[in-house]
Amino acid sequence: MATSQFHCLQSVRVSSPCRLSISNSYRHVRNNFRRKSSCLVYASTNNFDRDLHLQSKVKTVLDSVKWDDKGLAVAIAQNVDTGAILMQGFANREAVATTISSRKATFYSRSRSTLWTKGETSNNFINVHDIFLDCDRDSIIYLGKPDGPTCHTGAETCYYTSVIDLLEDQQNGGDKFPLTTLSSLESTIANRKGELEVPQTGKPSWTRRLLLDEKLLCSKIREEADELCRTLEENEDKSRAASEMGDVLYHSMVLLALKDGKMEEVLEILRHRFSQSGIEEKRSRETQG
Amino acid sequence: MATSQFHCLQSVRVSSPCRLSISNSYRHVRNNFRRKSSCLVYASTNNFDRDLHLQSKVKTVLDSVKWDDKGLAVAIAQNVDTGAILMQGFANREAVATTISSRKATFYSRSRSTLWTKGETSNNFINVHDIFLDCDRDSIIYLGKPDGPTCHTGAETCYYTSVIDLLEDQQNGGDKFPLTTLSSLESTIANRKGELEVPQTGKPSWTRRLLLDEKLLCSKIREEADELCRTLEENEDKSRAASEMGDVLYHSMVLLALKDGKMEEVLEILRHRFSQSGIEEKRSRETQG
Repeated sequence: MATSQFHCLQSVRVSSPCRLSISNSYRHVRNNFRRKSSCLVYASTNNFDRDLHLQSKVKTVLDSVKWDDKGLAVAIAQNVDTGAILMQGFANREAVATTISSRKATFYSRSRSTLWTKGETSNNFINVHDIFLDCDRDSIIYLGKPDGPTCHTGAETCYYTSVIDLLEDQQNGGDKFPLTTLSSLESTIANRKGELEVPQTGKPSWTRRLLLDEKLLCSKIREEADELCRTLEENEDKSRAASEMGDVLYHSMVLLALKDGKMEEVLEILRHRFSQSGIEEKRSRETQG
Repeated sequence: MATSQFHCLQSVRVSSPCRLSISNSYRHVRNNFRRKSSCLVYASTNNFDRDLHLQSKVKTVLDSVKWDDKGLAVAIAQNVDTGAILMQGFANREAVATTISSRKATFYSRSRSTLWTKGETSNNFINVHDIFLDCDRDSIIYLGKPDGPTCHTGAETCYYTSVIDLLEDQQNGGDKFPLTTLSSLESTIANRKGELEVPQTGKPSWTRRLLLDEKLLCSKIREEADELCRTLEENEDKSRAASEMGDVLYHSMVLLALKDGKMEEVLEILRHRFSQSGIEEKRSRETQG
């Protein structure tokens, strides 16, 4: 997929240091970011004006970045669905301009003194949906979706070494990431699932019990959904709603784990539905029908 | 809260460049990261040995970081619950050592040539739960929970400028962040809620209909929970489970928005439950009872 997308970019070339040679339209670039599935080629007679306008806009944005004395800014790539920080590199004007036009996270390699697009050798591109600048304009986020593991070691992210584990003398086998709460909960449930075959003494954890008893699990999911609804129907306070929502989410995640599903898949589905107004339209049609 | 936690740290001092003067125990620091609620003071006669052991461990970790020619590494602060990248600064050995001992995200200010702890003037500390190093050991994540807005402008994160918005000539009023999918969905729902008073022509969005009709919303939440359960009971495939899970999550989030609740609150509740084994124990007790 990554490769097939790349041919669209051949018409959007960047020459050093920041001369955009754009033979495609502004709308093309904008739509790239809007996640349209195909490459749009505009035959409009206004293309030349649009290109000039985009060129000027990109230059203004790049001029606003506070590049350091080497012409670089910190660039951080983040997974749009999971929130995982995938990697951090540095970007110069050309790298950001290339990322804008190609929507593939592109950096400047300080060791090789060259531009490089993450994935150009591994094919694990990071498909950038938007770029953010910080308040000081010297730090950049590439928010996007990776095609595969980002780290050259094959790990999902480059940040797999926990300092606390190091301080506790625990071997870090590359399977611990800076997990946000949702990912951490998912990981805990996955661990419980992985331990199901191991005989246990003592009181089993609640997650283990749910994993072993599908009837109990489904009964709890329906019960927690009902309790969440009752916080609205019976006008309970918002902290009660948040607590019940937590129960719904946790129990649903246990079911998802039993089905070998991942929260990242769920979030990707939601992103596609909402970016395409899918769920809105589908539901609206359903109800009107 | 931030201030009250700080007194615990007075016994854990760091002197330049990386001499840890630790009069408290290793366990103290470890428990700081384990989010124990109170400061533990160990009177053990083994404290001295433990301190030496910790000092040695911290030194080993700091030695393993590839500091640049100015003795710095990139340090990124991330919200453990939402996944939001809050800010990026630079850290030297002393900054990381201070963060390890104090669990407050601490950086090195290149402009002022001094150590600074985020929150020391605003009181909006970032309470660090764990620290991660990347594969090259030259980039650091402080994963933690902010006490309040991180940016000096009062914004939740410093990254509030979307390049795509800039390219589209849209004014960026500081209310657009690099939202991950869950936050983006929550933001969309909040926007729909904010528009409820605005008369609309044409077909209302599904979210608007749900927000306006509590009976419909609750009926959908119960229905989607039931459909999720049936993916397990009727042995449907995992993509179906992920899709139904998406429906459960979305509809529950609409209810949460109606109750003025936030997903960050839900995630914080889950984090506390699981870090304290709360939900596991509570449910286990409930069922056994």
